[in-house]
Amino acid sequence: MADEPSRGLADVVAASTALSDIDGRAGRLFYRGYDINDLAGHAGFEEIAFLLQRGHAPSRGEWDGYRAELAAGRGLGSLVMQDLDGVARHQQPMEALRSLVSLGSADDPDAESNEPAANLRKAARLTAQQPVLIAAYHAARTGRDLPQADPGLGIAANFLMQLCGTRPKQRAAEIFDTCLVLHADHTMNASTFAARVCAATLSDMHSAVVAALGTLKGPLHGGANEQVMRGLEAIRQGGGDPLEAVSSQVRQRLAQGEKIMGFGHRVYKTEDPRATHLRRMSAELATEGGDDTYYRMSRRMEEVVLAEKGLYPNVDFFAATVYHYLGIPTDLFTPVFSASRMAGWTAHVIEQHADNRLIRPDSEYIGESGLSWVPLEAR
Amino acid sequence: MADEPSRGLADVVAASTALSDIDGRAGRLFYRGYDINDLAGHAGFEEIAFLLQRGHAPSRGEWDGYRAELAAGRGLGSLVMQDLDGVARHQQPMEALRSLVSLGSADDPDAESNEPAANLRKAARLTAQQPVLIAAYHAARTGRDLPQADPGLGIAANFLMQLCGTRPKQRAAEIFDTCLVLHADHTMNASTFAARVCAATLSDMHSAVVAALGTLKGPLHGGANEQVMRGLEAIRQGGGDPLEAVSSQVRQRLAQGEKIMGFGHRVYKTEDPRATHLRRMSAELATEGGDDTYYRMSRRMEEVVLAEKGLYPNVDFFAATVYHYLGIPTDLFTPVFSASRMAGWTAHVIEQHADNRLIRPDSEYIGESGLSWVPLEAR
Repeated sequence: MADEPSRGLADVVAASTALSDIDGRAGRLFYRGYDINDLAGHAGFEEIAFLLQRGHAPSRGEWDGYRAELAAGRGLGSLVMQDLDGVARHQQPMEALRSLVSLGSADDPDAESNEPAANLRKAARLTAQQPVLIAAYHAARTGRDLPQADPGLGIAANFLMQLCGTRPKQRAAEIFDTCLVLHADHTMNASTFAARVCAATLSDMHSAVVAALGTLKGPLHGGANEQVMRGLEAIRQGGGDPLEAVSSQVRQRLAQGEKIMGFGHRVYKTEDPRATHLRRMSAELATEGGDDTYYRMSRRMEEVVLAEKGLYPNVDFFAATVYHYLGIPTDLFTPVFSASRMAGWTAHVIEQHADNRLIRPDSEYIGESGLSWVPLEAR
Repeated sequence: MADEPSRGLADVVAASTALSDIDGRAGRLFYRGYDINDLAGHAGFEEIAFLLQRGHAPSRGEWDGYRAELAAGRGLGSLVMQDLDGVARHQQPMEALRSLVSLGSADDPDAESNEPAANLRKAARLTAQQPVLIAAYHAARTGRDLPQADPGLGIAANFLMQLCGTRPKQRAAEIFDTCLVLHADHTMNASTFAARVCAATLSDMHSAVVAALGTLKGPLHGGANEQVMRGLEAIRQGGGDPLEAVSSQVRQRLAQGEKIMGFGHRVYKTEDPRATHLRRMSAELATEGGDDTYYRMSRRMEEVVLAEKGLYPNVDFFAATVYHYLGIPTDLFTPVFSASRMAGWTAHVIEQHADNRLIRPDSEYIGESGLSWVPLEAR
């Protein structure tokens, strides 16, 4: 009845989507037919979130309306506010976001509705709230008050302001905005797929997003950007010439068959186009910031891994140093990824609900068979 | 590069498992090689949880040890206790469990470890805690204190006692225990699959279980048992002869192309063996309880749906009346399902982590292509 198993569903088409497309051989990524290379630096995150969730690039009037909807929707609910301090004290960032988004459905008037209009409203609110949740979590765990949101700032600039307490430089906000654009969607990645599996039971958008958050948390997925930075930090703290240390440590780890975080991708056979943009932005921030050590270490690591294994950096690799130079704490890198991917997750839930079929695969049984149950008393 | 799309991954093998197997044509279900017909009524839920999580039927000594581990592990963590009242006041049962299990990782000393021994300990704790969470939620929302757990009772009897406030009759506890056995695992069902997709990023067991809970919540999956009962209640409240009302309403809904909850299954082509046991237990409780109306209505519905559509009842159909006769509130039917499936979910996470590969399928792009991005100012 079932076909040959495909471990990890590699190359198995699990769903149709009009949201994004990857040409893995050519190293190209498209959102709704637009090349990511045309979008990076030219489209803002709010435009991309609108494009993904609502199907077309917004007109000026639509953009104004959507920005107003985002601004109105970013307030955190009462249950979230009530539990925030305890969560911030006792849970790690991705654990905390999983809890807080789950709690957040309590204050969403559309929580239980999968109607198209309700899903659009929830998609906007979840996209608006995610960066605020991250900043609020960080403020709570560091004993500070969350700075008031600035309605004049877009999501990227407002997030950096609420996180760091000071208004970011314009160029820093632009670069972070481009990071959000680059991470917004990526076909059937594991977290998006988890969201669709969840939504396909006709469960609700919050449940699907909570499933996605828990999935993004894993070091083989969103957790990789944090691992990249921790790796660079550990090498640098080891002392000696950091570039030499990178070369020798990476060669040693590769020789031992270890995986180097931030390299290779199931779908791209050449450079991930997002990495190209992130590398450029990392270089710019490194030069401007005065200490380009982590950038140069990254370049060296890239050279060694390409030479030794033929693997290219993926989206997580240069995102790490970009976020670092922007002043984002390392343990918030994966949460920041989630703030961007929220645009894609919610759009995928909308798409799944619009033409739903339960996602329920088969499995291959590899265990024992024909056993007879012996009652406990006789065992 | 990718194969033909299979909508909903029907008949696509997504993973290998030694946990359970289904023969859909013959209507047979096996847990680790034991026929469910040999287990129902003969094995206790704790034995089945051990079997699934640890790979073999426990010896008497192992069973004693596991029961002690379950009893020690059922205490709820401080963050859960702190947030319980707010969650119970503001979230529906499955929303609440999604939040509470997510909060629960804060007090689990193994939360961030995927080591085999840590996973086994977490599996036992999560299995022990889930029924307590449901009873604690119900106590909190009804303004009662949660009755103290009775260390002399197994999970099934203790749950009914903590939920209802009185020690259950022995036969009621036995029947509920068999319900837990029947729902413990079922190959790559949607919630289990969501848990594996999550765990395959090397995310942790709590994240995977939270993903599964949100997925089970959907009316096409775990939510179906509640829908079945609400359907029966609505027909009975409509007045007139309840059996006649069932016949006419089901025929009418089928004629309009509507789906009848609790019937049909992607995998079984004949009767779901779990339904056979649940029907028998529903009949027994109906006879004993003195009002067998819902049971007779269910039987009539079953006859009509089989005659009209050739569909058999699935696990959710007779579970509804069994839970009803056991005094479980209708909106806790899906949570009760989760208390049982926790044994399977956690076992699948253990299995996934033991031989992991990222689950990352492909997608078919069906949207526009070749669009040029026009800046906002020019749109």
